[in-house]
Amino acid sequence: MSSAVGDWGLIGLAVMGQNLILNAADHGFTVVAYNRTVSKVDRFLENEAKDKSIVGAHSMKEFVAKLKKPRRMMMLVMAGKPVDDFIEQLIEAGAEPGDIIIDGGNSHYPDTNRRTKYLAEKGIRYVGAGVSGGEEGARYGPSIMPGGNEEAWPYIKDVLQSISAKSDNEPCCQWVGDEGAGHYVKMVHNGIEYGDMQLISEAYDIMKRGLGLSNKEMGDVFAKWNKGVLDSFLIEITRDILYFNDDDGTPLLEKILDSAGQKGTGKWTAINALDLGMPVTLIGEAVFSRCLSSLKSERGRASQLLSGPSPKFEGDKQAFIDDLEQALYASKIISYAQGFMLMQNAAKEYGWKLQKPEIALMWRGGCIIRSVFLKDITNAYRSNPDLENLLFDDFFHKAIDTAQAGWRNVVSKSALWGIPLPAFSTALSFYDGYRTKDLPANLLQAQRDYFGAHTFKIKPEHASAKYPEGENIHVNWTGRGGNVSASTYNA
Amino acid sequence: MSSAVGDWGLIGLAVMGQNLILNAADHGFTVVAYNRTVSKVDRFLENEAKDKSIVGAHSMKEFVAKLKKPRRMMMLVMAGKPVDDFIEQLIEAGAEPGDIIIDGGNSHYPDTNRRTKYLAEKGIRYVGAGVSGGEEGARYGPSIMPGGNEEAWPYIKDVLQSISAKSDNEPCCQWVGDEGAGHYVKMVHNGIEYGDMQLISEAYDIMKRGLGLSNKEMGDVFAKWNKGVLDSFLIEITRDILYFNDDDGTPLLEKILDSAGQKGTGKWTAINALDLGMPVTLIGEAVFSRCLSSLKSERGRASQLLSGPSPKFEGDKQAFIDDLEQALYASKIISYAQGFMLMQNAAKEYGWKLQKPEIALMWRGGCIIRSVFLKDITNAYRSNPDLENLLFDDFFHKAIDTAQAGWRNVVSKSALWGIPLPAFSTALSFYDGYRTKDLPANLLQAQRDYFGAHTFKIKPEHASAKYPEGENIHVNWTGRGGNVSASTYNA
Repeated sequence: MSSAVGDWGLIGLAVMGQNLILNAADHGFTVVAYNRTVSKVDRFLENEAKDKSIVGAHSMKEFVAKLKKPRRMMMLVMAGKPVDDFIEQLIEAGAEPGDIIIDGGNSHYPDTNRRTKYLAEKGIRYVGAGVSGGEEGARYGPSIMPGGNEEAWPYIKDVLQSISAKSDNEPCCQWVGDEGAGHYVKMVHNGIEYGDMQLISEAYDIMKRGLGLSNKEMGDVFAKWNKGVLDSFLIEITRDILYFNDDDGTPLLEKILDSAGQKGTGKWTAINALDLGMPVTLIGEAVFSRCLSSLKSERGRASQLLSGPSPKFEGDKQAFIDDLEQALYASKIISYAQGFMLMQNAAKEYGWKLQKPEIALMWRGGCIIRSVFLKDITNAYRSNPDLENLLFDDFFHKAIDTAQAGWRNVVSKSALWGIPLPAFSTALSFYDGYRTKDLPANLLQAQRDYFGAHTFKIKPEHASAKYPEGENIHVNWTGRGGNVSASTYNA
Repeated sequence: MSSAVGDWGLIGLAVMGQNLILNAADHGFTVVAYNRTVSKVDRFLENEAKDKSIVGAHSMKEFVAKLKKPRRMMMLVMAGKPVDDFIEQLIEAGAEPGDIIIDGGNSHYPDTNRRTKYLAEKGIRYVGAGVSGGEEGARYGPSIMPGGNEEAWPYIKDVLQSISAKSDNEPCCQWVGDEGAGHYVKMVHNGIEYGDMQLISEAYDIMKRGLGLSNKEMGDVFAKWNKGVLDSFLIEITRDILYFNDDDGTPLLEKILDSAGQKGTGKWTAINALDLGMPVTLIGEAVFSRCLSSLKSERGRASQLLSGPSPKFEGDKQAFIDDLEQALYASKIISYAQGFMLMQNAAKEYGWKLQKPEIALMWRGGCIIRSVFLKDITNAYRSNPDLENLLFDDFFHKAIDTAQAGWRNVVSKSALWGIPLPAFSTALSFYDGYRTKDLPANLLQAQRDYFGAHTFKIKPEHASAKYPEGENIHVNWTGRGGNVSASTYNA
């Protein structure tokens, strides 16, 4: 097998794949590159890959043959059927028991659950590894979230941890858990990314339309925020984007179509939250905001017809900008608290062991949501791994306490000005609901028992002989109707 | 077949089933009643069904034998496997080609799609009929939303329309559409019901904690609202519930546990909205609010730790209550507009012909969300069946225009007071987003192109030779990185 020179194989030469190959080659690994459209392989070898320890393969057979055993073969292809197809092609091409197949794309975690089991039966170790960091991250150090068949970890740890980002010298790549746990955590990461991006967009919108700031002025605001508690990759690139001018000297941003897609991981996170019954409201609003943005022409017609206030800001702009910084910070804390609530619940539901401190660590560097903030989350979970909720951590509930006056001012003004802040608003509603011992859901339960005989439970402090604690109680509210309670019907 | 005396058969003697049987008997039909736990049949015959045209069956064979052909057999059983089980049992028990099986439960519409096809192959006509109205409605006239195999409609129309509610002498039961269209429309109905109930609960909460009103005073408010634009079943029963005292003379409502479930139709509606990419935000927040309510003990601990303002209301309470009425009305208009956006999109997606005026008509009487308001929706769609959005109807956008000052005041105050109004707030955010020609999603697209080379499109008014309209554009924002755009990866 003198031809077996490759330490690492990679399938799929789009932007992420190419950059991960270059990254691995920089770290001294010989990488075998393959792409379905073979011309892409040659173009890559002649250009970006020139004079590096990168070998091309023009068929799957050649790809497999050129890899040392146990073969380490990573796919960066479109989620869905292509992943299953390449798995079958790898088997046909000679993948053997002991070999390792890694899916580095954004597969949906139930697919990774299925594929891990399927390949384990063939003795092949399967890993679903979420990779985040975009073009730059993939090239210079992404965040990598591997999960699946743990037998594979000792064989892939060296490559993945060496190409991954580092945070305080710790690799932003740790073993996440069984089956699709890696892709699940990446899914939640992307959901949180949707939330962070939506919050930043709302801040931009209210500074632009509410305060009337120029893009240069807003760029300066984000530049300043990037030196404080909001210091993060997304704040940094927003600064760059606001400063970026087209050839005519005007901001390119203002020429970009305001219509965003929302298929994929963000949507999956919101659906999973609904399925698990966890109130991940900020990601939900972020996904719905993208849906609304995509109704561009309908909004255009609506804007002609539907009235609203015309805000004229009077007062101290800098004070409002400082409030906005606090509002963004507090909303972000809520979004991450919701995300960790979801992962904590999923771990229980799916029987996965998820290490919360390691997850926060993985997100600290390399990925799109990397931030100083995630160091505080890592600290919170390291100092108390059994922390029930991020909001129970001293650092964070004190941070919100400091931020809330400004947060409330911004949310209340946006309602009066007619500038939508759905993510800021839902975060505040969640905070106020979460800290409320007695919510008005007692009325929901009374209504359901009234119209559907669905029964209710009594508050422990009001339990009595007539209404014992924990029992399903039905009251004949009207004096009419029967006393049959509903067991088979939900109105 | 002298034993075949039954005009109508009904399986499942829980509250809805029993009441539908009594309702059908009142309208002169002979009904055959069956229940898996046979003792329930006898108890029913000896009590509620005594001296009525109701016959019992103690086996499925007997049930089928006692029905005239073509047999009309309705199930009111738990959604899911029980429905499939009873279908198989009906076939074993002698259901024949031409017979009609109706599922009156809350089945998920994809199951009804499947069952309609499956039974059509056997020559059996299957109908999925959403039934709403709860205990009272089932007894005295529910709203019924039948869809599936249209061949069945001529045979079941007489029974279903005679037992259904009437609105201005029109039956609140019309043929909805193919396959699971009936259950789909019922699902959206229930989602909207979740929203209405959440809005009412939030109004109750802010009157109680914000204004410090007593239950009697709040009952009076709902009694007054029930004479105005909010006149509806849910407002009416909320009035009764607020007036309802326990034996000790204190309001029973305040003793009911504030923890609500959210499995089923409301959740399905929110998930379907995410799948279809429609911003049905109010139902989404209503479902998430139930999720949050169910974290009762965690909220108790959070309430000890997390701070907030302590509202002291000063000013004109009645003026605020009037604003609250307008806020509830405007939010409700948004919720129904979102619901019809969803159904309109689903009809396109699934190839169903949905009659919007008929849907509004069916919801006007009998069901849980019945209201005067739905008459205005019927009128809107009757006067213009091609209405793009309910908010484009003159009556409704004028209504919101009148309501919005009060609406904005209530939402902005709730943020300052620390009393969560997630449904009111998201409705206002939606309204302000929907009427905005240029949303900040341009920044999302710029960020995605910056970190993931995902490309963006240019606003038509800014198209140029360099940036042509409609094309996917990638900009090298950093001066670093390549010009490869992402085709296989979504960060």
